[in-house]
Amino acid sequence: MAVATQSVTELCLAARAAARELATLDSATKDRALLAVADALERRTGDILEANARDLEAGREAGLSAALMDRLALDAARIAAMARGVRDIVALPDPVGEVIEGRRFANGLEMRKVRVPLGVVAVVYEARPNVTIDAAALCLKSGNAIVLRGSSAALHSNAVLATVAREAAEGAGLPAGALALVAGGGREELAELAGQEGVVDLIIPRGGEGLKKALQAVAQVPVIYAASGNCHVYVDASADLDDALAIVLNAKTQRPGVCNAAETLLVHAAAADRVLPELLAALDRAGVTVHGDERTVATAAGSATVVPATDGDWGTEYLSLDLAVRVVDSLDEALEHIREWSSGHTEAIVTRDLAASERFVAEVDSAAVMVNASTRFTDGGQLGLGAEIGISTQKLHARGPMGLGELTTTKWIVHGDGHVRP
Amino acid sequence: MAVATQSVTELCLAARAAARELATLDSATKDRALLAVADALERRTGDILEANARDLEAGREAGLSAALMDRLALDAARIAAMARGVRDIVALPDPVGEVIEGRRFANGLEMRKVRVPLGVVAVVYEARPNVTIDAAALCLKSGNAIVLRGSSAALHSNAVLATVAREAAEGAGLPAGALALVAGGGREELAELAGQEGVVDLIIPRGGEGLKKALQAVAQVPVIYAASGNCHVYVDASADLDDALAIVLNAKTQRPGVCNAAETLLVHAAAADRVLPELLAALDRAGVTVHGDERTVATAAGSATVVPATDGDWGTEYLSLDLAVRVVDSLDEALEHIREWSSGHTEAIVTRDLAASERFVAEVDSAAVMVNASTRFTDGGQLGLGAEIGISTQKLHARGPMGLGELTTTKWIVHGDGHVRP
Repeated sequence: MAVATQSVTELCLAARAAARELATLDSATKDRALLAVADALERRTGDILEANARDLEAGREAGLSAALMDRLALDAARIAAMARGVRDIVALPDPVGEVIEGRRFANGLEMRKVRVPLGVVAVVYEARPNVTIDAAALCLKSGNAIVLRGSSAALHSNAVLATVAREAAEGAGLPAGALALVAGGGREELAELAGQEGVVDLIIPRGGEGLKKALQAVAQVPVIYAASGNCHVYVDASADLDDALAIVLNAKTQRPGVCNAAETLLVHAAAADRVLPELLAALDRAGVTVHGDERTVATAAGSATVVPATDGDWGTEYLSLDLAVRVVDSLDEALEHIREWSSGHTEAIVTRDLAASERFVAEVDSAAVMVNASTRFTDGGQLGLGAEIGISTQKLHARGPMGLGELTTTKWIVHGDGHVRP
Repeated sequence: MAVATQSVTELCLAARAAARELATLDSATKDRALLAVADALERRTGDILEANARDLEAGREAGLSAALMDRLALDAARIAAMARGVRDIVALPDPVGEVIEGRRFANGLEMRKVRVPLGVVAVVYEARPNVTIDAAALCLKSGNAIVLRGSSAALHSNAVLATVAREAAEGAGLPAGALALVAGGGREELAELAGQEGVVDLIIPRGGEGLKKALQAVAQVPVIYAASGNCHVYVDASADLDDALAIVLNAKTQRPGVCNAAETLLVHAAAADRVLPELLAALDRAGVTVHGDERTVATAAGSATVVPATDGDWGTEYLSLDLAVRVVDSLDEALEHIREWSSGHTEAIVTRDLAASERFVAEVDSAAVMVNASTRFTDGGQLGLGAEIGISTQKLHARGPMGLGELTTTKWIVHGDGHVRP
């Protein structure tokens, strides 16, 4: 494969050249290329599964955990889902060319501010091979060239997916170099990629804290961390019991391994007698281990699986059927707890009190704040972006789910008629 | 002064605490505080001039250049201009609370995306003391706490300006710590400031390449570089001579020391005979030294002040009455030259050809592209932002002039009624 023989720097320079062409391509050409990618994925399912089998075998030999093996594994249904994902992205509006604002000034000068692609986006990711296709489709749709760097564990799967996608896209008119996969999954390739200042415009890491730390140490290129989610649900004094039960269970158990799952439950002391026993019983039935503060442990009193929490629990993103639970004496104490421990992803309040909901919304400094809704709604699909390349917990450029629009920058275009400044 | 006795870290932590209060302040309170700052500046003009005199004396002893001394010098008119600048910022709409988008989804969930302050913004700047006030007014208006770090040369001027502003703002209801000046102007303070990850949300350096390099080496906190402008004017084959003369002279000479002044002129060969002699003569009359390529030197043939250009000239931001001039054989060659040498700030085309203007607009990858207008229009005031804290040449978060809106981030606010994900 051509993909495997070029250095990281060569791939990035080729992507840079391709990005110039991509930036001015019309939407129809980009969509045609993405549809060709979707078709090719389905057509070449056999090749993809064969490569995946090699990764799975190597994973078994290396003793990968069951969870990692599951993330790595592909089957025909998962490949069909990738193809469907690409077609869903085709159906979204092209952000490039959107006029965000524009006007004519008193002196007759006409201005408009227009969305343009960032240029070259690098996506660094861990086990899941489907990111190869999701990320490529989002970047190409938004007119960006993409350089992918997956993990060693998925080397064969990623290579065949990238090749299938690249051949289909180029065959349908996208410039060579627009989609590239870095051959190796090691730290050296990461460092070389992170040093491409002026060539790569943005690196989006999709992975855990280890990947974040590795990148922070070497990155010259701007990085948007789709970082961890230590999300809180706060059950206020006035909370409706049914809402509290539904939201806490959904936020914790509907998909515990993702960043918008809840990791800590805070319960107002005035509601504790009324709601905490039922909450603990429901969590117990759902197989959740509760790491409780003193009052929670006392409330449980042997009737549920509750272990005493340590300070470490408040800062932990479990990503599992574990939940830290604390009783607080006031909304202020809940806000203070969140200020101290939250990772700035999503916090939810369950309440019937308007003033409490307004203070919570105003004072919680996170990407998303939910009132009487599960933290699980912080998601590009759920919030109308159609698809997302990650969820940013930083404040600059993009905060929260990042869709196609967040993969663009802007250009100021000004038309005059010989205008000069007096 | 209290300002001078706290460490950088202490100032930043106090700013962080103040930022929480500032984020929820209503516009009227912020505006009242800024009007108090404007009044205090005028009332305490004597104190300010006295402190400035001490900086000027130290500058004379240290042998500062005439240009630096001019930047440093204040007089009653310059102080009145600062106060006017603050009142102009008061008159702008508050970006905080603006709903950027919002809708109700099929499941009844209601979402809105709202502008909120970044939190704590640090501004690092060089000689001009007026930045102390401009930057403070922009940050406070947008609900951010500000930590200022000026240069040693303006130590006394900055200290009294910051104290006057801080006392007036706090007296009118802003929280203590919302406006702070770092005591020293050295590299140690810069490094301490740049390491405040999680406390300071953004650093905006306003200064030359030296400051940029110093920050790049140490910054943990996100930085937006208001970087250099190597701006180009391209005179196309079909350009109107009068437009070309007016725009080139304005872009180069109206204020040569600023980032949106032109540094290179590219002239299409098909227009060279028609426009270049007159352009060179006009530049000569305006006192501009032309650094010309071979064809430009040949055209000048002793009739104007033209020296031969070296490769170094194409990459130089002169910030003076110097202009690099090159004759190109095509629009493609002009685009290629700009791609190679531009700093991504502003490029202008002078043309009567629609297709040429459209290609130029589409293919130039800069923050601003001008058609038949001077590069000098890339300015927050000129482009309707009211005021600017800098002009970003990077692609993430803000590109081009940064006004109040660019000093904010967003928060997703979602209201449900016990909503959970199925």
